[in-house]
Amino acid sequence: MTSEPQPTAGIVLIGNELLSGKTQDANLKFLGGELARVGIKLVEARVVRDEYDTIGAVVREFSERFTYVFTTGGIGPTHDDITAEAVARAFAAPLRLNDDAVLMMKSRGREMNEARLKMAMIPEGATLVANSVSLAPGFRIRNVFVLAGIPKIAEAMFFALEDQLEGSAQILSKSLDAYAPEGDIALPLEAIANARPAVEIGSYPFSRDGRFGANLVVRGTDPGEVTAAIEEIARVIGGMGVVIERQG
Amino acid sequence: MTSEPQPTAGIVLIGNELLSGKTQDANLKFLGGELARVGIKLVEARVVRDEYDTIGAVVREFSERFTYVFTTGGIGPTHDDITAEAVARAFAAPLRLNDDAVLMMKSRGREMNEARLKMAMIPEGATLVANSVSLAPGFRIRNVFVLAGIPKIAEAMFFALEDQLEGSAQILSKSLDAYAPEGDIALPLEAIANARPAVEIGSYPFSRDGRFGANLVVRGTDPGEVTAAIEEIARVIGGMGVVIERQG
Repeated sequence: MTSEPQPTAGIVLIGNELLSGKTQDANLKFLGGELARVGIKLVEARVVRDEYDTIGAVVREFSERFTYVFTTGGIGPTHDDITAEAVARAFAAPLRLNDDAVLMMKSRGREMNEARLKMAMIPEGATLVANSVSLAPGFRIRNVFVLAGIPKIAEAMFFALEDQLEGSAQILSKSLDAYAPEGDIALPLEAIANARPAVEIGSYPFSRDGRFGANLVVRGTDPGEVTAAIEEIARVIGGMGVVIERQG
Repeated sequence: MTSEPQPTAGIVLIGNELLSGKTQDANLKFLGGELARVGIKLVEARVVRDEYDTIGAVVREFSERFTYVFTTGGIGPTHDDITAEAVARAFAAPLRLNDDAVLMMKSRGREMNEARLKMAMIPEGATLVANSVSLAPGFRIRNVFVLAGIPKIAEAMFFALEDQLEGSAQILSKSLDAYAPEGDIALPLEAIANARPAVEIGSYPFSRDGRFGANLVVRGTDPGEVTAAIEEIARVIGGMGVVIERQG
């Protein structure tokens, strides 16, 4: 726990394929979970097309609004991989051939051709994000981390950069399943949420084996407040005759 | 084919759970694929928290920028379901109890309590989006469609509203798998992309059974251009000795 304001983040998911129905993004859920774990509040994510001006505008906006920015996608060798250049333009930092990136790529034993050299073109002033999975390096410029789009590589890059992040207290969560239609429990739940501003209470309806229910999640930084809220929910909703299944 | 400009769309995915790592969004991929099918270009998607001002600002911005806007999430009965009120405020349209929505909900045989009546509070001037899956109705106000967050319900709502959308020519795509590291084929691919501005060519790397490859996708509205581009890619890349597997 700290009295500092909680650090924030924004994520930019880059790629036409995410907007055309071709590809299911998996990086938002991964990064959202990891940021929560280290105590950084993910405020917004945007999914944008492979366009220089669009990428540049959102990266600049997020860099000013948030403590950290993460981009995924568009750092490979092909013509539709324009993220490095778009980010470089956004910060008026010229792209330069990065010697460390060339060494890293050569050490993997691939022939260095013009397309691969493109992956070693990094904005001036950026530092590399090492990773053991991919040929293309990620990089950090100012408060912006530029990661790969392929989930396994983005994950490896996140774990490699994680020690550069300063989070606040960890965000804790507890949840339970209440077997009732959401409309039957909404009012008592709202009363509890209003009485406990220190926690965030979410309700996520489901139907399972023909029974309606809601997964009720309490999130917050204070373990005592989180526990007290989930206990009160169990007591009040359970007291209405609703079946409660406890979780983590 | 038409000479009219292609209609555009923006999507707003609403819910803290999408940003905390709790929930994997599935609506973006579904809606992106359906919009491509009817010939509407999805330009951007945003993932935002359950906050009135945030939701209102992005809905107003997207409503001005795009032909159509779709929101998902936040239309249930609980305290964290604030989308209808946020959209109403965004357009200065008061929320009203919608008689058709009440009738629709009563016909499902549920007791109407205060929480359920909240789901029937719809902005003045909006029309309902019927659906056979959910109690909570979606609605349309101006060019904004407000849909449920649960994927099955969002899908049912989309199919119910689809005839209100005016798309342009269908966007066609053809693809093939080229079994080569992306860096080996990037340059000839770029030459083809530059020579064929009528189509969009994407390259999506994979590794499968220990072999590197890239899924190469050509998209466009002119069937002749799409076919010519995929044939040229197969000929040029295949001519380099790369194994090509044809797809749809």
